[in-house]
Amino acid sequence: MMRPLRYAMVGGGRDAFIGGVHRQAMALDGRMQLVAGALSSDPDKARASGRDLHLPDDRNHGRWQDLLDDELRRPPDQRIDFVCIVTPNHVHYPVALAFAEAGIHVVCDKPLTHTSVEAQALVRASGAAGTVFGVTYNYTGYPMVRQAREMVRSGAIGEVRKVVVEYHQGWLATQVERGGNKQADWRTDPARSGLAGAIGDIGSHAENLVATVTGLEIEALCADLTAFVPGRRLDDDGNLLLRYRNGARGVLMTSQVAAGCENDLSLRVHGTLGSLAWRQEEPNLLLHAPIDGPRRVLTRGSPWLCDAARRATRLPAGHPEAFLEAFANVYLGVAEGIRAAQAGRAPLPGEADYPTVHDGARGVRFIEKTVESAASAAKWTDWD
Amino acid sequence: MMRPLRYAMVGGGRDAFIGGVHRQAMALDGRMQLVAGALSSDPDKARASGRDLHLPDDRNHGRWQDLLDDELRRPPDQRIDFVCIVTPNHVHYPVALAFAEAGIHVVCDKPLTHTSVEAQALVRASGAAGTVFGVTYNYTGYPMVRQAREMVRSGAIGEVRKVVVEYHQGWLATQVERGGNKQADWRTDPARSGLAGAIGDIGSHAENLVATVTGLEIEALCADLTAFVPGRRLDDDGNLLLRYRNGARGVLMTSQVAAGCENDLSLRVHGTLGSLAWRQEEPNLLLHAPIDGPRRVLTRGSPWLCDAARRATRLPAGHPEAFLEAFANVYLGVAEGIRAAQAGRAPLPGEADYPTVHDGARGVRFIEKTVESAASAAKWTDWD
Amino acid sequence: MMRPLRYAMVGGGRDAFIGGVHRQAMALDGRMQLVAGALSSDPDKARASGRDLHLPDDRNHGRWQDLLDDELRRPPDQRIDFVCIVTPNHVHYPVALAFAEAGIHVVCDKPLTHTSVEAQALVRASGAAGTVFGVTYNYTGYPMVRQAREMVRSGAIGEVRKVVVEYHQGWLATQVERGGNKQADWRTDPARSGLAGAIGDIGSHAENLVATVTGLEIEALCADLTAFVPGRRLDDDGNLLLRYRNGARGVLMTSQVAAGCENDLSLRVHGTLGSLAWRQEEPNLLLHAPIDGPRRVLTRGSPWLCDAARRATRLPAGHPEAFLEAFANVYLGVAEGIRAAQAGRAPLPGEADYPTVHDGARGVRFIEKTVESAASAAKWTDWD
Amino acid sequence: MMRPLRYAMVGGGRDAFIGGVHRQAMALDGRMQLVAGALSSDPDKARASGRDLHLPDDRNHGRWQDLLDDELRRPPDQRIDFVCIVTPNHVHYPVALAFAEAGIHVVCDKPLTHTSVEAQALVRASGAAGTVFGVTYNYTGYPMVRQAREMVRSGAIGEVRKVVVEYHQGWLATQVERGGNKQADWRTDPARSGLAGAIGDIGSHAENLVATVTGLEIEALCADLTAFVPGRRLDDDGNLLLRYRNGARGVLMTSQVAAGCENDLSLRVHGTLGSLAWRQEEPNLLLHAPIDGPRRVLTRGSPWLCDAARRATRLPAGHPEAFLEAFANVYLGVAEGIRAAQAGRAPLPGEADYPTVHDGARGVRFIEKTVESAASAAKWTDWD
Repeated sequence: MMRPLRYAMVGGGRDAFIGGVHRQAMALDGRMQLVAGALSSDPDKARASGRDLHLPDDRNHGRWQDLLDDELRRPPDQRIDFVCIVTPNHVHYPVALAFAEAGIHVVCDKPLTHTSVEAQALVRASGAAGTVFGVTYNYTGYPMVRQAREMVRSGAIGEVRKVVVEYHQGWLATQVERGGNKQADWRTDPARSGLAGAIGDIGSHAENLVATVTGLEIEALCADLTAFVPGRRLDDDGNLLLRYRNGARGVLMTSQVAAGCENDLSLRVHGTLGSLAWRQEEPNLLLHAPIDGPRRVLTRGSPWLCDAARRATRLPAGHPEAFLEAFANVYLGVAEGIRAAQAGRAPLPGEADYPTVHDGARGVRFIEKTVESAASAAKWTDWD
Repeated sequence: MMRPLRYAMVGGGRDAFIGGVHRQAMALDGRMQLVAGALSSDPDKARASGRDLHLPDDRNHGRWQDLLDDELRRPPDQRIDFVCIVTPNHVHYPVALAFAEAGIHVVCDKPLTHTSVEAQALVRASGAAGTVFGVTYNYTGYPMVRQAREMVRSGAIGEVRKVVVEYHQGWLATQVERGGNKQADWRTDPARSGLAGAIGDIGSHAENLVATVTGLEIEALCADLTAFVPGRRLDDDGNLLLRYRNGARGVLMTSQVAAGCENDLSLRVHGTLGSLAWRQEEPNLLLHAPIDGPRRVLTRGSPWLCDAARRATRLPAGHPEAFLEAFANVYLGVAEGIRAAQAGRAPLPGEADYPTVHDGARGVRFIEKTVESAASAAKWTDWD
Repeated sequence: MMRPLRYAMVGGGRDAFIGGVHRQAMALDGRMQLVAGALSSDPDKARASGRDLHLPDDRNHGRWQDLLDDELRRPPDQRIDFVCIVTPNHVHYPVALAFAEAGIHVVCDKPLTHTSVEAQALVRASGAAGTVFGVTYNYTGYPMVRQAREMVRSGAIGEVRKVVVEYHQGWLATQVERGGNKQADWRTDPARSGLAGAIGDIGSHAENLVATVTGLEIEALCADLTAFVPGRRLDDDGNLLLRYRNGARGVLMTSQVAAGCENDLSLRVHGTLGSLAWRQEEPNLLLHAPIDGPRRVLTRGSPWLCDAARRATRLPAGHPEAFLEAFANVYLGVAEGIRAAQAGRAPLPGEADYPTVHDGARGVRFIEKTVESAASAAKWTDWD
Repeated sequence: MMRPLRYAMVGGGRDAFIGGVHRQAMALDGRMQLVAGALSSDPDKARASGRDLHLPDDRNHGRWQDLLDDELRRPPDQRIDFVCIVTPNHVHYPVALAFAEAGIHVVCDKPLTHTSVEAQALVRASGAAGTVFGVTYNYTGYPMVRQAREMVRSGAIGEVRKVVVEYHQGWLATQVERGGNKQADWRTDPARSGLAGAIGDIGSHAENLVATVTGLEIEALCADLTAFVPGRRLDDDGNLLLRYRNGARGVLMTSQVAAGCENDLSLRVHGTLGSLAWRQEEPNLLLHAPIDGPRRVLTRGSPWLCDAARRATRLPAGHPEAFLEAFANVYLGVAEGIRAAQAGRAPLPGEADYPTVHDGARGVRFIEKTVESAASAAKWTDWD
């Protein structure tokens, strides 16, 4: 087993939620090691957070710029292998751009940036530097999502006619942003969250899930966005009709005010030869209804799954894996990409299975187009 | 127990599907008795079908007009109590109008008519005659649908914010209408099916289910209809965004080409205080997710259900009831309405729980507006 | 369609529960018609109940003996085709014996009799008369139970190694027999219920379900019976280990004090090549887990089911059928048997699919052996 | 955050399965660090395995005795905090005894030992040394198991009347031990596995799950054990009837030849006021059926769960946690126990929630008594 990759984290300090999830995901397989950080935009909190995580003082920074400067001063063989950016959305862009331009591999949370202009700048920067740039659309790391992708791509359900994707949560059903909920606070603030609320926060996962599994490209969309909770400035519920370039139709639903729902992301794909259904809250199952025989329940860990699903599996069938393992799988893909880049070679087939900066940029465009459609009088909005 | 109501059936002869279902539903509780019929538009087939059902010769007619004439000739105490119309869609209107104008109670299948003009004529005719006019939106007969209605109407989930209703079938995923499937043949023929395909056939059930459970009124809708199967002239897939007058948003999905799906009608209602979910293929359950406590699974037959749900139940909890029983419940409601009318009184509270000609007319308008929206350049179409 | 079969009912009057279920099941398909009855052991209640059901006075009897006498006096072409016995258990035997000896076809509820001696007398009587004798183990009428039977018998899951059958209810979890619950009252009274409580009432269904589906024969059993509710004289909970003649092992569990359970009868069969699972509360599904591929969910109404399952189906897939339809299927099988007998021929292959007096007698022996095992010091009790 | 605890591992080298699972579980929360090992009984493989895991050469041993000697030579502040024993069953005892007698905290896999005599020696040794001794009954680490425990113990379902626990797997349905399956090889060998096969390997988990959740004590048991696969010397299927000291009854089923089953451990507890059901393959749910209201589905991460369940949770509701997280929870409990011991204090309320050597010893007795019952002529075997 090779030495673990060294990473620095920007964001994810005390009181943050998702940074700890990223760290647990990276710890799971023992292949990545946190060595440096600038864990908060507040320098004091940043350093206190770094001490919590046993970071050495000289790599525990109050500002991300100091982290970058410090890393660049170190000899390459002691430098971090990549940076992991888990700040609120508005900070993604400057940090990611600076590290990418400095030739450091980047993993950034989603949605990637506030604007397509920014996203394209990141595409160019990482392209110019030849570096890996992963975006943590973590749900793509589930083995059964990869199985679905393989089945759709290989024609197991024929040509896709209809896609239904939904992502329903209920945690913003009341005005929790006024009650000190830090996650709710920045997500409902346009300055930090961006153009969109629920569509950006979770709708972007839904868009990515469809694109990852089916490869379909959106031709036009028609959106209805609503802010239900009084005083809320960004959408907390959104519904879209979609037309794909192959003629398929889609429905994308998202809500953060669906009271009683937890994290109900699901995907259904209907093709000429059958249908697939997957649900994040029961992630070890993939339902396959062929047109000409009984429904099948594919389970993670089974020997008859595709290579990509089996590679993304640690435990035997019936020993469930879940959210953290899926998250970790995205990181394992990134790690393979970095290993290959460090070895000066392209990834082998099946290696480096992770969402890239291109996925991130498409997600930003999705958010922009959705907001444009919802705001326009003529509802159907072309993608191009 | 009072004598069974006597009914005549128009349509529903040999090779028909739904007529037999209506007859089984009516037989279940022993409260209705088939005494006359004009069971097909083909007089020979009509009479042969009547003989199959042991109809006496003098009430076994080749044409529905003969049936009507014959009944009117009989003394009132020997006449049918109501007529049941289960023909293809295009025949509903003339038959229903003639019987209603003759002062005979009517039960008619859905969608009620091809046009709102016709539907309004039926509203007027039955109104003028003071007769009962039921429309067999059979899914409203499920006890747990009635429980959902009670819970929404009584505020158990607060103010409704979002409704998701879907009806996915797969039986038209291939060109079965070319292969001798009689059900597919007329449903895909504009002359017999009307303006719409799937939206008329099953989308109308979805519309009715929402209206029945929530009472919400559509303010505007935005529809995308598609005919996927080559050569098909009517939509076999449709998706709508909906805005309701109270500010709620909705998504209505329907398909008859969702390969591998059977009869997957489901409803979710999200309110400020919780959510409800019901699925026709598991009709004995109603899921209730309150905002402030664990999810609850309400089961048919439980003592804590509302009166309307308990009245619609024959068997104890755990002894499942299903499609036919729900269908029968609609007829029991119609029967109560007829009994009350015959007694010259209004139905008592809780009695006569069935979809009326007004539901039928609203359903026709829904179809028209959906087709209008799908065909228009400006997609959002106002209801009024 | 032939004329409906005429039947008389013994038991099933006002306040009874299961009689009405039998009548609804028989009404469903329009093939059986109630023409006579002795609907209660209380003559006045019997006649009042018959009037409720519109029985003519001359066939509405106060005593079952009068019913039998009256029928025998009628010319054969006006006589009932069969009698349906739905009394409490202790009355089954004398009524069934009398009618069978009189050469009248019989349908009797389960458990058949209080003792094997009585059961064997019924076997002999109906054998001597050459009459049909059906026992309403109604759960065998479910299409997916018949599909399971076909799959096990044809080797789809290989040789059976293990069977787990359970039947859990909760309605007797408290002392309801003291509170006026008529169903609870006689079921907990040894004089009317027989040797056993839950084991007789519902354990016998479980035994029959295993035998029907697998054909396995019990070699020995080891039982533990308990009366949990204070003051109860018959078991309200029972658990058995089973050994079958082919070497398979079994577990049979039953309870009527499993608080919160409704009517949770389920069967799992594990063979060398796969497993099957069926659950009465979701009766339209049969789960099949083959050893060498993904799990399959077989659904009622699918074209790939066996003949017996398809014959037992009225509605298309996705239009659920349930308890009453299954019950009706048993009666349809009986009717085919009677038609064949009346025509002086053996039933055709696939016809006359119903549990017979032999099933009933085996069920009585099961109850006796279970009680014997539970009472003995040496627990394993041989069947023979 | 305190420094991670240092641990050594015995067993768990190349080709082993469960050792890696233990390491991942311990890595998850960053609170334990592997620093030493004797990872195989084959010294060369042991050292190669240690190099895979980046163990320093001086703490990478070929024999567990060398590991122990080396640790004892080190100053206490550099010594391991605990040893983790993940060898095949027959090696547990000597290793655990040696480390416990040396005053080192121990975590050992289950079943603890081959005999009760050995198990009691471990109880005494760890008691004498005052050290922590955890046994990795990992399923007790699931939050919803802890919720079930709290609900049963606090009386939410009243007095327990019946327990049904089952653990069905299918991976030994064929003679895989002859085909090079290392896991199957030692588990089916009496010399390495012990007295029992499936009952020891997975039945012990089932026994522990009941004891953990309910606290019920077995009074007597009646077992039927079978080796279905030709040539197999240990049971691969077992079924037990149980009587508990409080009068409750139980059924325990286990199989490793239930073809098509994966890792189907489930528990149902029926009390006077309601029932609970939990299933390992859907571990984020706990079903609660109260006697007097609708069923409830409790979900991990909800604010209304008990403290113990919430402490065992990392992610919000709807972000599923699974097998590894549950495993990690057991280790977190052990870690709290060790921290407390190192601080010379008793654990605080709610701390140190893990199965101990007493659970392990009871599990060994369960195996012995089960085998005794299955082998005896008089089947019911008293626990004492």
